[in-house]
Amino acid sequence: MTARDLAPDPAPVPAPVPAPDLASVTRGRLLFGGDYNPEQWPEETWQDDVRLMKEAGVNSVTVGVFSWSRLEPRPGERDFGWLDRLLELLHGHGVGVVLATPTASPPPWLGHLHPDTLPVDEEGRTERWGGRQHFSHSSATYRRYAAAITEALAARYGDHPALTLWHINNEYCTYDHGDEAAARFRTWLAARYGTLDALNTAWGTAFWSQGYGDWAEVLPPGRVHYLKNPAQVLDFRRFTSDMLLECFTAERDIVRRYSPGVPVTTNFMPLFIGQDGWRWAEEEDVVSVDLYPDPRDPLGAQEGALVQDLTRSQARGPWMLMEQAAGAVDWRAVNHPKPRGLNRLWSLQAVARGADAVCYFQWRQSRQGAEKFHSAMLGHAGPEGRTYQEIRRLGAELAHLAPEVAGRRIRAEVAVLHDWHAWWAAAQESRPSDRVGHLAMLRAWHRALWEARLTTDFAHPEHDLTPYRMVVVPQMYALTDTAVGNLLAYVEGGGTLVCGFLTGVADQDDRIRPGGMDPRLRELFGIRVLHEWWPLEPGETAPCDGFDGTLWSEEIEPDGTAEETVRYRGGELDGLPALLRKGRAWYLSTLPAPGALRGLLTRIAAGAGVRPVLTGAPAGVEAVRRGDLLFLLHHGRDTVTVEVPGTHRDLLTGAPVTGRVTLGRYGAAVLKPAEAAS
Amino acid sequence: MTARDLAPDPAPVPAPVPAPDLASVTRGRLLFGGDYNPEQWPEETWQDDVRLMKEAGVNSVTVGVFSWSRLEPRPGERDFGWLDRLLELLHGHGVGVVLATPTASPPPWLGHLHPDTLPVDEEGRTERWGGRQHFSHSSATYRRYAAAITEALAARYGDHPALTLWHINNEYCTYDHGDEAAARFRTWLAARYGTLDALNTAWGTAFWSQGYGDWAEVLPPGRVHYLKNPAQVLDFRRFTSDMLLECFTAERDIVRRYSPGVPVTTNFMPLFIGQDGWRWAEEEDVVSVDLYPDPRDPLGAQEGALVQDLTRSQARGPWMLMEQAAGAVDWRAVNHPKPRGLNRLWSLQAVARGADAVCYFQWRQSRQGAEKFHSAMLGHAGPEGRTYQEIRRLGAELAHLAPEVAGRRIRAEVAVLHDWHAWWAAAQESRPSDRVGHLAMLRAWHRALWEARLTTDFAHPEHDLTPYRMVVVPQMYALTDTAVGNLLAYVEGGGTLVCGFLTGVADQDDRIRPGGMDPRLRELFGIRVLHEWWPLEPGETAPCDGFDGTLWSEEIEPDGTAEETVRYRGGELDGLPALLRKGRAWYLSTLPAPGALRGLLTRIAAGAGVRPVLTGAPAGVEAVRRGDLLFLLHHGRDTVTVEVPGTHRDLLTGAPVTGRVTLGRYGAAVLKPAEAAS
Amino acid sequence: MTARDLAPDPAPVPAPVPAPDLASVTRGRLLFGGDYNPEQWPEETWQDDVRLMKEAGVNSVTVGVFSWSRLEPRPGERDFGWLDRLLELLHGHGVGVVLATPTASPPPWLGHLHPDTLPVDEEGRTERWGGRQHFSHSSATYRRYAAAITEALAARYGDHPALTLWHINNEYCTYDHGDEAAARFRTWLAARYGTLDALNTAWGTAFWSQGYGDWAEVLPPGRVHYLKNPAQVLDFRRFTSDMLLECFTAERDIVRRYSPGVPVTTNFMPLFIGQDGWRWAEEEDVVSVDLYPDPRDPLGAQEGALVQDLTRSQARGPWMLMEQAAGAVDWRAVNHPKPRGLNRLWSLQAVARGADAVCYFQWRQSRQGAEKFHSAMLGHAGPEGRTYQEIRRLGAELAHLAPEVAGRRIRAEVAVLHDWHAWWAAAQESRPSDRVGHLAMLRAWHRALWEARLTTDFAHPEHDLTPYRMVVVPQMYALTDTAVGNLLAYVEGGGTLVCGFLTGVADQDDRIRPGGMDPRLRELFGIRVLHEWWPLEPGETAPCDGFDGTLWSEEIEPDGTAEETVRYRGGELDGLPALLRKGRAWYLSTLPAPGALRGLLTRIAAGAGVRPVLTGAPAGVEAVRRGDLLFLLHHGRDTVTVEVPGTHRDLLTGAPVTGRVTLGRYGAAVLKPAEAAS
Repeated sequence: MTARDLAPDPAPVPAPVPAPDLASVTRGRLLFGGDYNPEQWPEETWQDDVRLMKEAGVNSVTVGVFSWSRLEPRPGERDFGWLDRLLELLHGHGVGVVLATPTASPPPWLGHLHPDTLPVDEEGRTERWGGRQHFSHSSATYRRYAAAITEALAARYGDHPALTLWHINNEYCTYDHGDEAAARFRTWLAARYGTLDALNTAWGTAFWSQGYGDWAEVLPPGRVHYLKNPAQVLDFRRFTSDMLLECFTAERDIVRRYSPGVPVTTNFMPLFIGQDGWRWAEEEDVVSVDLYPDPRDPLGAQEGALVQDLTRSQARGPWMLMEQAAGAVDWRAVNHPKPRGLNRLWSLQAVARGADAVCYFQWRQSRQGAEKFHSAMLGHAGPEGRTYQEIRRLGAELAHLAPEVAGRRIRAEVAVLHDWHAWWAAAQESRPSDRVGHLAMLRAWHRALWEARLTTDFAHPEHDLTPYRMVVVPQMYALTDTAVGNLLAYVEGGGTLVCGFLTGVADQDDRIRPGGMDPRLRELFGIRVLHEWWPLEPGETAPCDGFDGTLWSEEIEPDGTAEETVRYRGGELDGLPALLRKGRAWYLSTLPAPGALRGLLTRIAAGAGVRPVLTGAPAGVEAVRRGDLLFLLHHGRDTVTVEVPGTHRDLLTGAPVTGRVTLGRYGAAVLKPAEAAS
Repeated sequence: MTARDLAPDPAPVPAPVPAPDLASVTRGRLLFGGDYNPEQWPEETWQDDVRLMKEAGVNSVTVGVFSWSRLEPRPGERDFGWLDRLLELLHGHGVGVVLATPTASPPPWLGHLHPDTLPVDEEGRTERWGGRQHFSHSSATYRRYAAAITEALAARYGDHPALTLWHINNEYCTYDHGDEAAARFRTWLAARYGTLDALNTAWGTAFWSQGYGDWAEVLPPGRVHYLKNPAQVLDFRRFTSDMLLECFTAERDIVRRYSPGVPVTTNFMPLFIGQDGWRWAEEEDVVSVDLYPDPRDPLGAQEGALVQDLTRSQARGPWMLMEQAAGAVDWRAVNHPKPRGLNRLWSLQAVARGADAVCYFQWRQSRQGAEKFHSAMLGHAGPEGRTYQEIRRLGAELAHLAPEVAGRRIRAEVAVLHDWHAWWAAAQESRPSDRVGHLAMLRAWHRALWEARLTTDFAHPEHDLTPYRMVVVPQMYALTDTAVGNLLAYVEGGGTLVCGFLTGVADQDDRIRPGGMDPRLRELFGIRVLHEWWPLEPGETAPCDGFDGTLWSEEIEPDGTAEETVRYRGGELDGLPALLRKGRAWYLSTLPAPGALRGLLTRIAAGAGVRPVLTGAPAGVEAVRRGDLLFLLHHGRDTVTVEVPGTHRDLLTGAPVTGRVTLGRYGAAVLKPAEAAS
Repeated sequence: MTARDLAPDPAPVPAPVPAPDLASVTRGRLLFGGDYNPEQWPEETWQDDVRLMKEAGVNSVTVGVFSWSRLEPRPGERDFGWLDRLLELLHGHGVGVVLATPTASPPPWLGHLHPDTLPVDEEGRTERWGGRQHFSHSSATYRRYAAAITEALAARYGDHPALTLWHINNEYCTYDHGDEAAARFRTWLAARYGTLDALNTAWGTAFWSQGYGDWAEVLPPGRVHYLKNPAQVLDFRRFTSDMLLECFTAERDIVRRYSPGVPVTTNFMPLFIGQDGWRWAEEEDVVSVDLYPDPRDPLGAQEGALVQDLTRSQARGPWMLMEQAAGAVDWRAVNHPKPRGLNRLWSLQAVARGADAVCYFQWRQSRQGAEKFHSAMLGHAGPEGRTYQEIRRLGAELAHLAPEVAGRRIRAEVAVLHDWHAWWAAAQESRPSDRVGHLAMLRAWHRALWEARLTTDFAHPEHDLTPYRMVVVPQMYALTDTAVGNLLAYVEGGGTLVCGFLTGVADQDDRIRPGGMDPRLRELFGIRVLHEWWPLEPGETAPCDGFDGTLWSEEIEPDGTAEETVRYRGGELDGLPALLRKGRAWYLSTLPAPGALRGLLTRIAAGAGVRPVLTGAPAGVEAVRRGDLLFLLHHGRDTVTVEVPGTHRDLLTGAPVTGRVTLGRYGAAVLKPAEAAS
């Protein structure tokens, strides 16, 4: 077993000048605004736009995300006049500009003249223009044109006074299985493995007679008769993330040359499987994310919190909510608008969890095109519409809060482990159960912590975990040797580790660990033999002492060193351990129902010295501390009263709060301790 | 905004001679018969066929629909001998011939020699022979061969005494996304828009950087990474309908040259999205349709009535039921036969709603091929089978009824609006809800009217609506300026308009109207601001005063001019209007449960002076008046008694009917007023 | 109608020397072992393997199934050293070797150098390497390389003392629609039909204008606009089975040349539609099958019994369970392990039903590759794992049983008819109902017989049926004239025939028989007219005298000769016959609920003089007699007592059994009559 890491090439890109950060953009403010696509409107509308922006407190707009065909109507032709006028107008009204490179959606002429720029899917079908993101990350031609338009933009606007932030591309999410991608994949593999022998070993090609004798035989995973090679699929995921990252860094390095003091970002999609989020974040100056929970989802607020916690952890500080919807989206089967007050509540939640920017897709709702039913700050109903009216009020509130909040940090004593490589290794066909996906487990465990009001960071399994009192591993199917060592050292050093099933099953090549689970982890938890996995059918439960397990159970033979166990009761596993505790190491071989998992984690956290942000508050009231401020967010519609020890001032109302505060429908309070507020 | 119509090219084809019509075929009879495919049988079977046809009262058969490979076994070779003998035989037995051009299913040699005649689907896959309809509407080669075989047929049989009607092709429903279609699409677009600038404007290509700089870049909608351009999809639907229509008119014009006195039709599929039914009907001499409700569907009879009402409206008079099933079809998951009596009942329903022809696919059930489990007039069970025995009795009844019915017209005081362009604009991805499709709404509203026994026509939104006392708009997502003006003028002129939600949202380019709904319509109904659409989940309801709304609701701020409203009760929309009435204009922002919608429309109709055909009859008894005849159709199995004021004679039994009539299982009565019957 | 058989070319391959059989391999033992893939492991692990094999009583392993790229790392290069060492090692430890040709999974270089060896699916997409079975059965290049590696293997190991059996390829299941396959298809069709006219007649190409004028126009069924030609699809299934069989026999003939005394097999997938199992079995010396019931399926044991009965019937004697899982598989959505005892029980069941070999996929669980979650005899948990421990005990038991069991035969008095051609004809689109598939009916009827403890063989409808007292036809959609004659002769000769619906509907070309059911069969059962099929919706029932029918019903007019009937009660078919009996011929026009079908078949069997193996035993206890041994298999977890008349010795415990035996959870007994045991 080599010491090779899951992330194959950790060499950081050199940063010649100190990287600028989000604080250089916010300058004590909270950014408020959204994507602005003025090319869809006559210029007279722009005047209306800036007037309404000012009324709404908009101080930042993202421009140019999909402007390539406008900026370069024919190959090499440039039309910057409209953008000159626009930036002037925005600057004149004090609206900062997040300037995007338009490379996410090439003009029709590019695909027409250069079909090699078009991506090919796994079935060999070419994606064409007429939508968006029809570019191959591996196409040298695409990269050349993208660099050229980026260079032209950067040269023209790199020192424009309106420019506050560079926004590269948009929601990187493409793939390519075509010939040029195949060639790049081989190059990437050669760099990773050096020799074909090493590749054959890593991919386990002795299975099913897949031994490669020549690099030219190696292809992206494609259409097969039965079951793909999982290590090949895993490496193709790594390769795809790396190719997209090369596209990003190439453009980033261009704009940096022209604007050394302007930070660079690209907007992530939330919980997107396609990018190694830890690695990408390291390459950004500002981490930003798009976030679209379903207003109808009872767990929509938790989905928001999860993404916010993850993004904050990637950013290691304040971050940017680049896109959210002011109302409905357009891509669900039934698209619900946000009820009155919900947009404000969820925006404050983002701020509570570290956002210094609350932005939207998009400023003005499109009248044409594929997303004309996606809501906007200024919707089809216009300035008189409820949505815009709420946006106005929110803009004022954020401006009011900003001086107390912007730049403040959040301290978490709990970390949840997440890693894209482990996700990629696990999210494949032919597994013990298709019901226990990486993300489903991440959500289930985060939900328990969120409902318990235990503020959590996310961390990579090789990160330094010593700052945390408790580390939670919902599921980490694949772990490197380094990561296993890190977990052991963490417990050794006094940390409390709570670990879910299907963890440490495989190494970085998706090679099963001896015994079906890493032997060091088995020893850590007191497991002698892991006889069999017993996945459960949907809806089936495994009764245990004190709770019902769901989705999974295990036939475990403990080694007698565990101090405390919860046992299965009844069924094939009767009497066998469901929960094992050995010192500060806890192993859970099933998924307790939500309330039970919440209770269990609360208890373990208490043992580790971790207290919830607030205790005794009604269900549905979220509590987060940012800096010295206590955010209370009420996700229900009935009025509730929350006990808050001590004396505070509610920054939203200015009112003093002593002992308790009352929250109405979707209500929020931002409480500053009285002594600090005086 | 241009005044361009939804139907891009309304120039009528010149008709040099007065067009013949269905009456010239029926000559006072009701046509009874079906598709006849004698090429599947040895010629000795033909003798059996004509004998059994005569026994069953068959007076019309459709011949040659799928005979191309028999007529032209090799390119340019003709084999007409069998058809000569067949037509002679039929003519000798007094069976009229509807002669089809065989162009729906080219022989294998055509695709083999000319792959350019084969259609390509959106994924780039070619459809081959081995099924049917494997022709590209855009292929010049296909069109040339189709014209040649049509010309040969017309030259040989154009003045054959057996010939009564030309039947062009069969169920036009193909598409093509290949290169030749792409070229024709560009030509079609150039004719529609003139300039690329106009196309860019209509398609909203400023969105997502889709601006076209060269016509060669414009393609049919194809595989994209994310979301197609909706205006491009809409125009491709228009183009496809137009190309198919060109195929039709080309063949029509050929047969007309040889048979100026013989009318021409092509058989529509019922409620088929692919053809602009209003435009196509204008090009036909006789409008005919194929109709296959599920015998198990509790709303099967309503589905029939809807298609019959629509077809009658397209025909502007009597029409032809070209295909129905005598028993089961073969394309559902479970194919139910027609219970005893149902075939007769549904056939009489077609006559009641204007059909002068009751025909079937097909005469004799095939023993081989893909449709051998599709029932026929003469099924596998043969002449002793129940199905044929019922066919015999029906034939006699229709012959008996014919003198009183054939050619008679139906007068409707209510019109339901339907338009294919609005359907095409609406039936796309990324919409507020996928549960409120154009057709679903059409069915829901027609059902209410049908159950209320309010006879309805269908009309295009730009038609002259003044003949109707009430116009109903189930949903008309896209409306031209002309159509909006037409609706306003209709109300202005005294008409009653009842309008469902998602109407007037877009213009002919799928461009959202200001405010999310046409301002003139908002004014018409008394709507100040349409804040948000609130689509409902499946099964969810929105309680209102007096009924429960389903599928949809709206956050509307009225302008105070509406005289009467029903309000939402409870939930986010509590107190907001669900139903608005402003004079004769009614707007309904949700879909009431079926009974409530029926009640509401009955009440509004009464206010408009429209009375049901019959009141007080038991549920399930359909009542329609054709000419002076009252058709009563009982869709249940229990015996019921229907009150019928006055004195009539039942043409089916010859019995006098005074005050009431009793109907047994699937029973029917055709009542003629006594004075007229004397 | 020609006398051509469903199986087009019944000419047997000449067998120059007396074919060796399974007995020559078992030599009085029961084979116990599994697939062994040592190329996935370092050679030091092999020592561990043979030691643990010996401990577990393993006496046979299958080697080389997926070793091609190891044996021939580059075209023409051979590497046999490792296999030499392996066979020596196994032989030295007394483990016999089933040597596989590795042709199921060609090395990457083959597809890379020779893309013509890759199969093309119906959509025109090529399958590539990276999985397995990426070979075209029609590729001359593939066949040449496969023959060469087979020849090399046979030359080197054909007389190796470890060699006990040749195993050709693995689970033949591929297809090809590419150009080379199309050419072979035409050749195959020309051989079958002689002339295009005959093909046109058989395929019914008069329907939909599909008449072929040139052989070059004939293609495999492909993408069509609407509905494929069913006879073309049927013949393509026949062709595919035949091509795969050519691949098999080509390799078989090579190894036979080198090892005339070593029998040859290939492992079938259970109830696999793609191979004509009767024809294939005739070409094998040993019939073997892979069997993977779901441990969670309440009917898992019946699924096993069905496959075992069918395999035994194909083998006409003892057979080989080539693959089963020691625990979980990896290809279901949720993969359950085998609870303690179940692997033993199901292994004994196979022995009870004629298996002389109990083998597994695979010996040692893979740590890498697509099937690493498929259980093995030696799983991830290793020698201490429960699974291996149970394997050890089972190995000992089988060794103990072997002398009494190996080679013994089973006598069945009931035969169930099954035929792949009828299945192929029925398993197509556009049928009366998609709920009454051939396999579903086979399972439903076999279940009734299995629960009734009526041991059954399977037979082809043209087999000699006179050895059986009762013949059951769950559904035989297509029957040749010969088969119909065979059934009539069987009843004529005193046999009892019980026949389900949709039998005798079509002939060998999927041409509907006159009347929708063969007239001779209608006469046999006393049916005058089969008016209509009335398929039922899922969950719908048709009440009859004494039971509820499911899935199907029929509108039948009897001819008055039937002596006994059960009638439909209520609904459209009220009073019509559901069950007809005419002498020894029974016809059932619906599917009774399971208990009712069991009761009915038990009663009819009793009338035919067939008694269950055991009566009065608790439900869930299976009873089978093999030779003079009575196997009792308890599929439940509660302890039960079974009355067994007489005195026996239980070979598993050695204990005497008088009158009754008690079986615990998954318990089994193998009872030998006392007199014989003395």
